Order: sequence, then structure tokens, then C-alpha cells
Amino acid sequence: MSAFKRKIRFGMVGGGRGAFIGAVHRIAAGIDGQLELVCGAFSSDPQRSKDSGADLFLPPDRCYGSFEEMMEKEAALPEDQRMDFVAIVTPNHVHFPAAKAALEAGFHVLSDKPATFDLAEAKELKGIIEKSGKLYGLTHNYTGYPLIKEARDMVASGKLGKIRKVVVEYPQGWLATKLEDSDQKQAAWRTDPKRSGAAGCIGDIGTHAENLAEYVTGLKISELAADITAFVPGRALDDDGNVLLRFEGGAKGVLHASQISVGEENNLNLRVYGEKGGIEWHQNEPNTMLVKWLDQPMQVYRTANGYLGANAASASRTPPSHPEGYLEAFANIYKNFANHVRAVADGVEPEETATDYPKIDDGIRGMAFIEAVVASSNANAAWTSLDA
Amino acid sequence: MSAFKRKIRFGMVGGGRGAFIGAVHRIAAGIDGQLELVCGAFSSDPQRSKDSGADLFLPPDRCYGSFEEMMEKEAALPEDQRMDFVAIVTPNHVHFPAAKAALEAGFHVLSDKPATFDLAEAKELKGIIEKSGKLYGLTHNYTGYPLIKEARDMVASGKLGKIRKVVVEYPQGWLATKLEDSDQKQAAWRTDPKRSGAAGCIGDIGTHAENLAEYVTGLKISELAADITAFVPGRALDDDGNVLLRFEGGAKGVLHASQISVGEENNLNLRVYGEKGGIEWHQNEPNTMLVKWLDQPMQVYRTANGYLGANAASASRTPPSHPEGYLEAFANIYKNFANHVRAVADGVEPEETATDYPKIDDGIRGMAFIEAVVASSNANAAWTSLDA
Amino acid sequence: MSAFKRKIRFGMVGGGRGAFIGAVHRIAAGIDGQLELVCGAFSSDPQRSKDSGADLFLPPDRCYGSFEEMMEKEAALPEDQRMDFVAIVTPNHVHFPAAKAALEAGFHVLSDKPATFDLAEAKELKGIIEKSGKLYGLTHNYTGYPLIKEARDMVASGKLGKIRKVVVEYPQGWLATKLEDSDQKQAAWRTDPKRSGAAGCIGDIGTHAENLAEYVTGLKISELAADITAFVPGRALDDDGNVLLRFEGGAKGVLHASQISVGEENNLNLRVYGEKGGIEWHQNEPNTMLVKWLDQPMQVYRTANGYLGANAASASRTPPSHPEGYLEAFANIYKNFANHVRAVADGVEPEETATDYPKIDDGIRGMAFIEAVVASSNANAAWTSLDA
Amino acid sequence: MSAFKRKIRFGMVGGGRGAFIGAVHRIAAGIDGQLELVCGAFSSDPQRSKDSGADLFLPPDRCYGSFEEMMEKEAALPEDQRMDFVAIVTPNHVHFPAAKAALEAGFHVLSDKPATFDLAEAKELKGIIEKSGKLYGLTHNYTGYPLIKEARDMVASGKLGKIRKVVVEYPQGWLATKLEDSDQKQAAWRTDPKRSGAAGCIGDIGTHAENLAEYVTGLKISELAADITAFVPGRALDDDGNVLLRFEGGAKGVLHASQISVGEENNLNLRVYGEKGGIEWHQNEPNTMLVKWLDQPMQVYRTANGYLGANAASASRTPPSHPEGYLEAFANIYKNFANHVRAVADGVEPEETATDYPKIDDGIRGMAFIEAVVASSNANAAWTSLDA
Repeated sequence: MSAFKRKIRFGMVGGGRGAFIGAVHRIAAGIDGQLELVCGAFSSDPQRSKDSGADLFLPPDRCYGSFEEMMEKEAALPEDQRMDFVAIVTPNHVHFPAAKAALEAGFHVLSDKPATFDLAEAKELKGIIEKSGKLYGLTHNYTGYPLIKEARDMVASGKLGKIRKVVVEYPQGWLATKLEDSDQKQAAWRTDPKRSGAAGCIGDIGTHAENLAEYVTGLKISELAADITAFVPGRALDDDGNVLLRFEGGAKGVLHASQISVGEENNLNLRVYGEKGGIEWHQNEPNTMLVKWLDQPMQVYRTANGYLGANAASASRTPPSHPEGYLEAFANIYKNFANHVRAVADGVEPEETATDYPKIDDGIRGMAFIEAVVASSNANAAWTSLDA
Repeated sequence: MSAFKRKIRFGMVGGGRGAFIGAVHRIAAGIDGQLELVCGAFSSDPQRSKDSGADLFLPPDRCYGSFEEMMEKEAALPEDQRMDFVAIVTPNHVHFPAAKAALEAGFHVLSDKPATFDLAEAKELKGIIEKSGKLYGLTHNYTGYPLIKEARDMVASGKLGKIRKVVVEYPQGWLATKLEDSDQKQAAWRTDPKRSGAAGCIGDIGTHAENLAEYVTGLKISELAADITAFVPGRALDDDGNVLLRFEGGAKGVLHASQISVGEENNLNLRVYGEKGGIEWHQNEPNTMLVKWLDQPMQVYRTANGYLGANAASASRTPPSHPEGYLEAFANIYKNFANHVRAVADGVEPEETATDYPKIDDGIRGMAFIEAVVASSNANAAWTSLDA
Repeated sequence: MSAFKRKIRFGMVGGGRGAFIGAVHRIAAGIDGQLELVCGAFSSDPQRSKDSGADLFLPPDRCYGSFEEMMEKEAALPEDQRMDFVAIVTPNHVHFPAAKAALEAGFHVLSDKPATFDLAEAKELKGIIEKSGKLYGLTHNYTGYPLIKEARDMVASGKLGKIRKVVVEYPQGWLATKLEDSDQKQAAWRTDPKRSGAAGCIGDIGTHAENLAEYVTGLKISELAADITAFVPGRALDDDGNVLLRFEGGAKGVLHASQISVGEENNLNLRVYGEKGGIEWHQNEPNTMLVKWLDQPMQVYRTANGYLGANAASASRTPPSHPEGYLEAFANIYKNFANHVRAVADGVEPEETATDYPKIDDGIRGMAFIEAVVASSNANAAWTSLDA
Repeated sequence: MSAFKRKIRFGMVGGGRGAFIGAVHRIAAGIDGQLELVCGAFSSDPQRSKDSGADLFLPPDRCYGSFEEMMEKEAALPEDQRMDFVAIVTPNHVHFPAAKAALEAGFHVLSDKPATFDLAEAKELKGIIEKSGKLYGLTHNYTGYPLIKEARDMVASGKLGKIRKVVVEYPQGWLATKLEDSDQKQAAWRTDPKRSGAAGCIGDIGTHAENLAEYVTGLKISELAADITAFVPGRALDDDGNVLLRFEGGAKGVLHASQISVGEENNLNLRVYGEKGGIEWHQNEPNTMLVKWLDQPMQVYRTANGYLGANAASASRTPPSHPEGYLEAFANIYKNFANHVRAVADGVEPEETATDYPKIDDGIRGMAFIEAVVASSNANAAWTSLDA
């Protein structure tokens, strides 16, 4: 038991009324009963920030009008009131300055992805983190699923043999029409280069696919050839992209992501094939993983069964077939990060699972992936290495 | 916004270290950030109760050694500290006395199912509830799924036509061996007539199937013919049951539940067929519902899409294909119950969704179902009416 | 190689223009290139019989106006022209007299199911077959699927342990409206007690379910309790039935069949659970069988893979995932029967697979099942034994 | 009814004992009872050819030792005995010379794919066909599935809107080890450049994927960027390939094919997304097609239902959920080709469905695809146009 016998306190940058991902972060933080939201800079409009905080039962004096104000005032609070870490859930262009401010004010940071607006910022952020000595986590939440952990462990243990082929897809259909012309806030910022970055679809969801493939296989993409497109007339950023992949060590693969694949909801999926076996997983039905063998029947792995390894086991909360989903996977990022924060506060070595969450190096990979895809596509799908 | 600008406070009876369903209730209560666990009688062993409470960051003076002590001490606290309601998560035989004590002490009650140990108790409890003027909810959690609400609304609106046939199944396999002879706590009490009641499998999960079928169709089972069995040698209660159903209004059906169906996890599922259409839903993959028509292709309804009705919409927290599961469905019972508690405290009419949770009448139906199944099976599957 | 170096010749009773099952039999017979249709009594209208035969490139003198004429004239032909066996594909009430005539004229018989119009006829037919010394096969075609053979072998070898529970379903929706009032020939005779027999849905498809369950488990249904219904107003025979099952040796189960389950196509499916494992198979996707275990991941068996046993292997014609379907399963009945005919003609012992097709005892079981279901339902679902 | 009141006669080049695809062709030809195998050059070994023919009940004088002999002797037979067309089922390098010989001898040709050994031959063959005035069909059998015809018609009718994205996959796993070093005949010729052609996996199955995508969308691939690999050490030809696609009119896509994707059977599948809707189809379960819409629930189209169009309807033989598979789809190529042969013999215009089978232009596209893939991959995935 932690010497630190209280809930861990966090504040939130972004996530005011009407936001999507802020609510997700709060649920994820709330699931295990280990964390307490104590403050927020929910909006750049101070009154809106206070109103948003009131919805969450926060006192007005802990609801700030800017992240700068939040860092300053929280740092000035007594230790037994002050937040322990900051969750950043803003549009992409704010990720870096908010993280920088938090780290420099002495707070750990758990940021929504992508880590930053571009690769240069991500590299800069790495330096800031190292200098601060604080923890930094990135909510590439899909790695939080129990069966994804099992898949990673199966690859790492050699059960599948040397990996040869990877197919990772992230099709969505919600931007098949020009939704950003309506008042849909989520669509608006994601299709705006000033808030989203160099890529649209590839940045928003392609990076999840890249992260998932590298997490499970333990292999880095060495180079890629990409063909990205803005299908919807008048859209400034890509809404679809097809990418050939080459991995360190010789595996090859395909990554494609889309926001114009009509009727697809959020169908991130991954197939990995080694010399001896393969796995297939779909985020739509995340409690099932198909495991394929050379000469034996395919197996159906299901969350929370006794035959799974320790990492998958520790990532689920209920018995088999009490389906766990997106929010629980997201909560696993929070849980591990919180356990790491707790270990640091206790001055002890964290358990291995407590460090199993994406960090700045994943963020740098993501930004390098985005920049390589854009560069390759601009060069008519020329092979482009990931300089990260 | 509620005049009642704070989290709702609840205490828990049961759910100490090693329990399963207590943790589920706490997660479900935590998801929406509207509820705060403030006390508990987590165990009949006072020290164990305090230790369990400490895990949850509760002060020792709010961790009681019995539910009687809890009711007494909480009732004596100032109104701004006292719990608002009690969650009961003990084995079955404690449900009634704990609920009675709480209601008589002036607290609302949200109880795990079954409502009581037998039908007579359930009917008695109804009188106690009515006398108390307090709210009583029952966590038949499977009715909390968004698509189950959609199914209910489709039937109610007549889209499927008059209902003719219902097939509801609840196969599990975890008791295919004599697990209760090991130290598995969950198996031990569920197979013990003193703690579980007159039925084993039928009581534990058959009642969920019964409740789901009646909730979705809006029809009452009028009579049934049942054949229940204890397949595992030496087991005192049934571990499998097959039941023919007749519903008010002429629909017929089949219900079967099992805990010896090897390899089945927790595969509650429902099919309903009317004169014009039908639905099929599986708890294993709860975000998908198949909708079937006379002359048109089958449709695949998925949680959180815009084509769903208001009740399904209000029961989900994330966009399509961010899978929600068991815990979120469970949380919907808590959410609605909490909103009802809030409305009562505010002295206003609750919104319609706030009253959409199972109540004592569902509990009475469940107990009547159990008793009818046992009586029918004892009479060699003679048709037996549900006297409730 | 057979000494009998030619295709086996068969004639057909029924199956003229507009018939469904006759065409299925011809395709099934044609698939392996071992059989040749040489004659037919395709219709009781002689000209219609000749016209139907002409469509099949048969000469007019081999197209008869009645099965009596066919038996007489074929028996009179020289041995090198005469048919070897008769396929009977008429409505149910003609099965018995046609089979009797054929057997007594010295021809083997392969009959569509049910064997006869009622149980008494079926028992009488058994005597006629025995007296004739000829072969008699029954096209309970669903037993022809490769994975059904694998399932049977898994049970027989004890891999699943002693069988405890069987769930077999056959839902269809095509008679959810009063289709027999249109000119739909298939609906008309199936809902007519004079042509269909004592039961509608239970006779037409319930018997397939019964046959499949007994074939796979190797267990006989000892008694049953049935509740059958004619849901569509004005329909004389049941269009839905729910049945509790008890098997010899103690296994229990549920069988339900329906023709009013809107949106169901032809969804025969079977689940069998033993003490150590279970299987699940759906005729809709017949090349997949789920195999379930106590403590290991579910396996997905697929047709034509090397891990299957000899019987499953011999029942498929293409490599894995070149899907085989209904017609190939049907063809397996024809193939085995034809190999048996060939062995008899050669005067040798047939190979074991050549005798793997349903016979008169299966037919008697089917008729006994129908009569027991009707009797039980008439007695308000009283337990009724299968007297066969 | 055809004036041509007899079965159509065909001969076969290849397909002797031990061959796979020859047996498939014979079953496909036999299914509808319209065709009769009358002769064959089953092997280049005359005795083996006669032995193979004897298995099929053919007289020795119609079993030839070479296709040259077959063309000569058949052409010399009286018209009422002579074959009507030739089916070519040899390894790839024989397709062209056999087709040339048959056409020049006055016979129609139905050839297995690919049409020829290389693109130059395919173009030459087109000239030979045109000069001969005979029919030429190519068994790209996957276009024979009913739901593939429905998909094509949905695209053509504009129901899906303008096509934007195409994903077509053909993963297999059977060559994940060096199977060609065993005595596996199928593996041996497919991995041998002298018999298979310039590509392995891409030629064998990639062309099926290409053909399917172009057939359904009605769009031509204009250029591609390919990365193909021989993963198994010592293999001369590619066993895996990943390809970016650009179509005429602006659609983009991905094609990947593999023979080293462990555990994949024969999982050809296609997804097409337009501005208004999309489709998804898997050859593994070919009687199901998912149809996706912007704002409505996904629909599940199933073979043989009344809501399908005329082309899909004419391509199925049984009612819904009597699953049809690979052999029936293959039979549809034979059926349409045979009907075309019959129309030509009758001197009438063929019905539209009778001309719905792949022809030499499809063969040329396939060869151009293979050559473009190989050229692109050799140029490090440079965009390469399909010069055909």
C-alpha cells in the first residue's frame, strides 16, 4: 500500500462544456476510484471555465481562465491541496504549450495525442520533460485494451515467430460529407490546419494505427510510401490515406486510414503475421482476438480468461464476457500513469505495469510518422524514412 | 441544474476485499462523476470492513461492522455529511434485511438482484418501501444497455408488430466442474441454498433472462413449464434449466440458462419476433443489435448512432464504435437512480429517463419466476403460473 | 475401382417444372459425375412429365405419367439400360407408396424426408425394405456437411466428455404471413394436413433438427414436452414449436423450430455441451464450427483443413475457404448412397463412408418425433416418450 | 428453348489425376445438367490421360495424349459427336498454346486464369480469338458469386454514389513454409517462374483481387505502386505483395495479396466506398454482403432474397440460407458461357446474362496488372501505369 493514502489529484486543461474527449478523460480517471479532479482550465473564457467546473462540482476558485493561470495558482497552493498532475485535452495546437507550462511548474503531465503540433515541438518537449524530471504520458488509448497487451506479449515471447507482415487499418466515415461547414466542433478543428497540424485523417487517426502497430509488434516503421487525399471538395487536409510500410528487420505492411469510408464507425483493426502464427484484432469488438496458426485451428482469445498472461489480466476489471470497452481501455492508461505518479511520490520503484503507458518517445514517433506521410505523399509516394 | 449542487453520497453494504460485484457497483457509481462513496459496512468483520474502506480512501469512522450500525450512525450524522442512499451488494440472503433496515432508517436503496431470498420477502419488502416513501432500485443491469432500450422502444412503438415468439438464453460454463469445492467464493455462495435461495442457476442468471425478456417485450410471462437439473454430482442447486414460456397476449417462447455449458462465458442473448419484424441481441457484443424484417435486408443497429431513439441515445457516453460495455450499462442504472434521488431531493418531478431502472415490482417478478420454475420442475414440468 | 465401370443410373419420382427439391436432388446427383438421370415420373400429368423430362434432355419414352408406370416399364428394360435406383422428391404423402412400389419392383430407393406420412407407414416401410433386400436412403441432407461429421466424431471419441446439454434450433420466417393463400406451391402443400402430415413446421424442419441432434450426439431422445402453435390465423398446422428434450443417458436439451420467426432464413443450428467441451454449428455458415473448452480458448474449425478427421475430409471437395454449401452437403448423401449401390452391384463390402447416410431407422425416428410432439402438445406439453 | 436440344459437349486440356482445378471445373460444369464432358487431353502422358479419362467414364479413344492430338481428332469427328468447346485447366504456361490450338481448330475456349504466360501473349491471343470468330471465356470465378453481381449493379446504378475508395485483399497462408520442397504439386508449379510466369502470389491470386475490384466498380486501375516480397528463403517468386492503387476518375485504393499470412485460408475480400454508401464482401462467407450508408444502419444482404436484383437472382440456385459456395459461383461462369455457346449455335442473340463472364479483355488486364506490379516493385514502388 502506498504511503500516499489519498486519491491522486489532477487538473484538466480543456474539456469544457461541449467537448468530447474531456468527458472521456474524466470517466477514464473516475473508473478506478483512485483519482480526483480538483481543478481545471476548461476554457479560455473564464466564465465558461467556471460554469464547466460547476457542472463537475468544482469550486469557482479552482476553475481557471487559462492554463498559465492554473499552473501559477496551483503551484502556489499548499501541498495537501495542490493537484498532482495535469491532463491536457485541448485541440492539438495547445498540447505543447500547456505541457510545457505544466512541466515547468512542476506538474506531471498526461496529454491527449498527438503530443504536439509538429515533430520539432515534440523533440523540444522531450528535452523539457527530461529537464523537469516529471512524468509525461500520452493517451494513445487503444494500447490500453487487454487483448492488445496479450498480442504484444505473444509477439515478444516469440510465439508467432519472426514478424513478416502487418496490416493496420483505421476507417471511419463521419467526414464523408463536409461536416465542418455545419457547427460540428469536432469536425471543425480537425479539418483546420491551424489547429490540427500538417495532416487531417493521418494525424487524427493514422497515428493511432501507427502507434498500435509499433506497440504490438515492437518493431519500428523504417520507411513508408504514402498516397493521401482530400476527397471532400474544399477540405484543406487529407481525409484518407493509403501507406505502404517497411519495418526494421524486414517486415512489410500496409496502413490505411480514412474518414470518408461511408458507414465505418471507428473501425481500428490490426493483423500481424509471423512465421509461426498471426493475430487479428478489431477495436469494434475489442474483447475478441483471433489467433491463427500454421496447422492448427484458429483460436478465439477473449478478455479476462484464465489463459491470458499477466499483463492482459491486470488490464481488465470484470470476468469474461462482461464486455469492457473504450472507456476501460482509456482508464488503463490513467490507472498505470496514476500508479507511476504514486510510486514517484512514495519514492519507490514503480511496478512494471505502472510504466506501461505511452510516453514522449511514442509522441515523437507519431509526429515523425505524420511528417513522413505528408512528405512522401507530396513526393508522389516516394519512400520516406521516419527520422525519429 | 439541481438545487442540490453536490455529488450524491452513498454507502455500501457488502463489497469488501475479494468481492466481485461490489467493485462493479463502485465503478458504475464512479463513471459519471455524480456520486461519492462515503461509507460502508463492507464486511461483518469490523476490522475487515475498515481495511476494505481504507483501500477506498474512507476514514475508519465511516466503515461499519454491520449494516445495522451503519444505518444507525449514518442517520445520526448531520444532513450535509450523511449518505443519501445505500447500495446493497451482499450475497442474496442479506438483501432483504439490509434493505429493510436502510429504508426504515430513511435511506433510499439500490440493491443488487435478486431483491430478496424468496417471494414472500419480496412482497413484504414492497410494503416496506411503500411505507417508507423512499426510492428502491434493483440492479438488473442488463436493461441498462443502450440497444436494449432501443429494442424496448421498437416493440412499444409497434414497429415489430404484435409479438409472437421470444427466445432468451443465458449460458455460462464456469460451474461445469465442482468449483465450489475450491476456495472460489463466488461459486461457494451461489451453490449454497442457505445463501442463494431456492434456485442456483435459475436464480443467479435465469432471473436476468426473465427480466430482460419482460423489459424488452413489455409482456408478462403468464405461465411456464420448466425442467431444471443439477448436472455436477453433489451440487445442491440446479446448474441448468430449460423452460417453455407463455406470455400474456399469446406470445410463446423458450428460456434456458446454464452454468455447465462449457466454454460459454456470459452469453445472455435475446431474440424477439413480431408479426412484422424481429430483433436479436447478444450481451457478449452489446453494441450491435440485429433488426430483421419480413421482406427487407436485416439491419445492424449499433450503439450511439444518430438513427437511434432518445432513450438509447441518453444511455451512451461515446460516439459510435467506441465500444461501451457491462460497466457502462451498469452505470446507467446508477445514473438514472441518482437522477431520481436528486429530483426527490429537489422536490421536482424526475425526467422520464430518471425513473427507468428496475424496481421492487421487477424484483417480485424475479422471485415469482424462480418459485414457479422450481415448482414446475418439481411437478415434472407442469405448466405453472407466475403468481405475482 | 468398381467392376461396374459406368455411371450409376437413377430415375426420379416428382421434381417436375416448378418444383424446388427435385432440382436440388439433380444438382446433388450431378456434382460428382458418378450418376446419370435416365428417367422420371416427374408429374402425375403425363404431358407435364414429358415436358419436364425434355428440359433435362431425357427422351419421351423414359418420362412416365406415374410412378407405377415407371416401375413397371423400367423393370422391363434390359439391365444395361434400366435405372439402378429411384429418387423420390414428391410431397410427403407420396413418399411411402412410391418407395414401396420401387422396392417391390427391385429398385434401391433414395427418398426425400420425411420417410412417410405417419409413423405406422414408416414401420411398415421398414418391413418392405428388409423383405426387398434393397438399399433405402433418406436425404436428411444436413448430416452431409463435413463439420457435422467432425462433430459426430468428436462426440463419439469422447473429446467433449459425457454429453449434458443439447440446444438445436431451426428458425425460418418465410411463413410469417399466410403465404399459402398466394400461389406459392411450396407453402401450399406444407401447410395442408392431407399432403404434409400431422405436423407443419415440426414435420418439415423440426425433424431435421431432431435428426441432426441425434446424429451428432449419438444419443436418442427418450421423451419430450412440446408446445406447438399455429400463429398465422387460419393455418391448419403448426408454424412454430418449442420442445423440452430428455435424452437417453441423462442429457437434456431444447429444440425449437419456427416458420414465423421473421427475418430468419434457414438458420438450423446446433450446440452440444459435454463435461469437457462443446461445439456450435450454424447451417448458415456451414464451413465454420466453434469448439469450446473448459480452460482453453475457443477454436474455430473450418472445413477442409488438415486437422480434421477422415470423415470430414472425405466429405469436402475443395481446399479450405473455398466455401462448400447446401448442395455439396446434399451431394454427400448421394455420393455415399451411390457408392453403396456400386458396392452392392460389385458384390463387395462397402467402405465405411459408403454407408454413412440416413436410413429407414432415421425415418422412423423422425416420424416418432413428429407424433410425440403432436401428442405432447395436445396434452398441454406432457412428457411423451418416443415410441420408436 | 434452344433448338439445340442436347447437352453441350466439352473436352478438357489438363485436369488429370491429382490435379485440383480440373476437378473443380468438372463439378462446375456438372451442376446445372447442361454440359457433358466427352473427351480430354488430361495429361501429356498418354496412358495417364486414358487412366484419368477412365475414372470419368470416358472411352479410351476420346482420351488424348496432347492437346494438339485432341484438336485434330475432335475436329475430324462428325458434328453430332464432336465437342463444342474446350476447357483449359493446365498450369499457366500451357494456357496460350492450348487456347490457340483450340480456337484455330474451330472450338470455343473456356480457360482457367491467367489467360496467358505474359502480356504479349495475351494481346496476341486477343487477335487469334477475333480472327477465329469463336467464344473465349476466362474463369475468374469469384465474379460468379450472386452478391458480387449485386454489388456491381449497385455501383453501376449509382446507389453508392461516385466511388472514392477501394480496398481489396487476398490473404492466404498455405505457402508460409517452403511447401514446394515437399511433393506438393500445386505449390511446385506456382512457385516456379517457368510455369507460373513473372509473378507468384500476385499472378496466382493478386489477379483475382484486381479482377474483382474492376468488375465490381466498373473502374479501371490507371496506375499502381507495388512492393512485393519473397519472404520464404530460397523462393524465386513473390509470396506477398502490397499495392497502392489509383483508378480512372480519381478513386484510390489498396490491394494486398499474400501466401504467407499464416492461418488465412482463402480470404479474398472487397470493400468499396462511394460518396453515399459502401459495400463489404468476404469470399469466406460469400452469401453475406454488408451494405453501408451515410446515416442509416448497415444492411446485411444475403443471397437469394427477394430484394436482390435480377442478376444476383439468376446466379443462385436455392432459397435464402441454403448456402451456395465456390463451386456454384464457378458453375455460374460455366452456365453463362454454355448459354452463350448455345445461343451462337442457335444463331440467336444471347441473353444479357449469357455474356456475363470474363473474356480476353479481362485476361489482358490481368497480365498488364502482373507486369505493372513487377515493374513497379523493381523500381522501388514507383507509380506505374497499366498499359492495357
